[in-house]
Amino acid sequence: MAHDEFSLIRQWTRRSDGQEGDGLTVGIGDDAAVFTPTPAMEVVACCDAMVETVHFLKETMHPSDIGYKAVISNISDVAAMGGLARYALVSIAVSPNWSATQTSQIYDGIYEACETYDVRLIGGDTVSAPDALHLSVTVLGEVEKGRAIRRSQAQVGQAVFVTGYVGSSAAGLHLLLQQKNTGEGIPNQFQQLIQAHQRPTAQVTAGRLLLTSQACGALNDVSDGLASELWEIAEASRVELCVDASLIPISEELSSYAEQVGKDPLDWAFYGGEDYQLVGTVDAGYVDTLREQFAAAGIPFSVIGRVESSAAEASVTCKREGRQMPLPKAGFNHFGQRE
Amino acid sequence: MAHDEFSLIRQWTRRSDGQEGDGLTVGIGDDAAVFTPTPAMEVVACCDAMVETVHFLKETMHPSDIGYKAVISNISDVAAMGGLARYALVSIAVSPNWSATQTSQIYDGIYEACETYDVRLIGGDTVSAPDALHLSVTVLGEVEKGRAIRRSQAQVGQAVFVTGYVGSSAAGLHLLLQQKNTGEGIPNQFQQLIQAHQRPTAQVTAGRLLLTSQACGALNDVSDGLASELWEIAEASRVELCVDASLIPISEELSSYAEQVGKDPLDWAFYGGEDYQLVGTVDAGYVDTLREQFAAAGIPFSVIGRVESSAAEASVTCKREGRQMPLPKAGFNHFGQRE
Repeated sequence: MAHDEFSLIRQWTRRSDGQEGDGLTVGIGDDAAVFTPTPAMEVVACCDAMVETVHFLKETMHPSDIGYKAVISNISDVAAMGGLARYALVSIAVSPNWSATQTSQIYDGIYEACETYDVRLIGGDTVSAPDALHLSVTVLGEVEKGRAIRRSQAQVGQAVFVTGYVGSSAAGLHLLLQQKNTGEGIPNQFQQLIQAHQRPTAQVTAGRLLLTSQACGALNDVSDGLASELWEIAEASRVELCVDASLIPISEELSSYAEQVGKDPLDWAFYGGEDYQLVGTVDAGYVDTLREQFAAAGIPFSVIGRVESSAAEASVTCKREGRQMPLPKAGFNHFGQRE
Repeated sequence: MAHDEFSLIRQWTRRSDGQEGDGLTVGIGDDAAVFTPTPAMEVVACCDAMVETVHFLKETMHPSDIGYKAVISNISDVAAMGGLARYALVSIAVSPNWSATQTSQIYDGIYEACETYDVRLIGGDTVSAPDALHLSVTVLGEVEKGRAIRRSQAQVGQAVFVTGYVGSSAAGLHLLLQQKNTGEGIPNQFQQLIQAHQRPTAQVTAGRLLLTSQACGALNDVSDGLASELWEIAEASRVELCVDASLIPISEELSSYAEQVGKDPLDWAFYGGEDYQLVGTVDAGYVDTLREQFAAAGIPFSVIGRVESSAAEASVTCKREGRQMPLPKAGFNHFGQRE
């Protein structure tokens, strides 16, 4: 058994064989990978874990979706620095209730995400686990020297923006869990919500446009819900952020599904997470230019508020139905759903 | 609960705050870390996972040992390329049966290893797990451009060597498991075996000496047992390796413990693993110089065999009691102990 399984691992990562060149000196299969960083670029490094039952269920995510999403969440982090992802290392712990075929499908998703974003899988570790499957991905990328966009650089007077639509991933999960319980199929009209949950997009082009603009203050990706990300920017930058609920970009599919199930779509937008959109601040005078550039790139770009003042105590407020109220911070976090 | 736990995570990694500078542009706490690679160096990247019940038990490893060893196993991989470790990212999935204090102690071990080897913790992910604790560490290091030592460069006529002593970690584990069952204390005379298992050393100095020598062919670290590592070199380099059992460096403590429990110390040496010594090949004419350099550095250096011939089919043989026999490949691997 031992060696059969071991040769399976080799088979799963064989698609990375012979990929040396173009900066990669030693690829997968040695003690470590070795690459030459591009001159005048810095290295960007991040790491995200996904755990069965905590981040996904077999019933709501195909194995290839799990692999795909684990890579995307990291490419998204690199995009949130204004950078480009280049390499990935994958650590996977597989329990006996995952077949070799299912594990191979996880790698299918990993490679699909890598190919889509021009990332090479250069290393990792494959081990056994007693029960839940764990997937931890490290992505290494690059960004022009000294130009990485931090979350701590929001400036008073800047506009607060978000790319794409938010809340769709959480609504997609809600729909999948409903379907799991009722056994009904997913209506065609809501496929975009399922796609947002299972096959999210990393906003690499948006991040590059923002970096090139030199007008971006702070930047985060929406992994834990918009409210949580806004608070991170407010706290790191020590500012007050004011957003307007009516400006939060909600897709038609999300509005329609929320109405159907009697939910507030803004709740998913603020507290759902895993949208992998970019949220940040930009110079107010540069908003029109960015709007044009984003429109040309086919990426929705919504101004949702303003950096109101610098403050010893950071805050985020939200205007809704004429009233400006503090926006609670609590989003999903991995130590107990919502506060 | 959610936010209490969340602030605990911040507390665990707070020791990484304010560490920017000396090449590190963005440290822990943003979407990703950013660093400037040292000029004329390439980046070395590796990733190793440790899973509760598969790689360790609470009964045999203190939480701080678990954190320490997870970092060491990666620094060892960088050392096996001839490189120097610089940065670490830690992904940890903690289950409810691990207290905040125990988790904090894992970080104590992580930081202790980082400080010992001049590595900075620059990122990671902390999530919850349903049961077994999972720890996945990525280490980024550097090596002089074009000089990383691969496992595929063994040359016919080179000597096969190993640093330090092998088998001690597996004997230490055996002793700990015996103790767990009998409740007896660990005799003082065997503390070195326990140390080898719980607090291994990464052979960074040895790796650097070998790189500087320019006489090193292939190099591996001993993570899966000496036999498995020799086979990896033989297969990657397509050579026949012949080693002599009487030359395998076994510590006095290991000999003595093996005798006491009626075990063959060579079995632990070949198939135990987690010794984190370096095994490789060097030009025969350079062996004496290396012996002197290693002696000056206080690191045991043992020639254990020779690269006999290049072969379409790789092989490893071992001379024991006058007979040269094929050395079985099987070491510990994570899909079912021994073949």
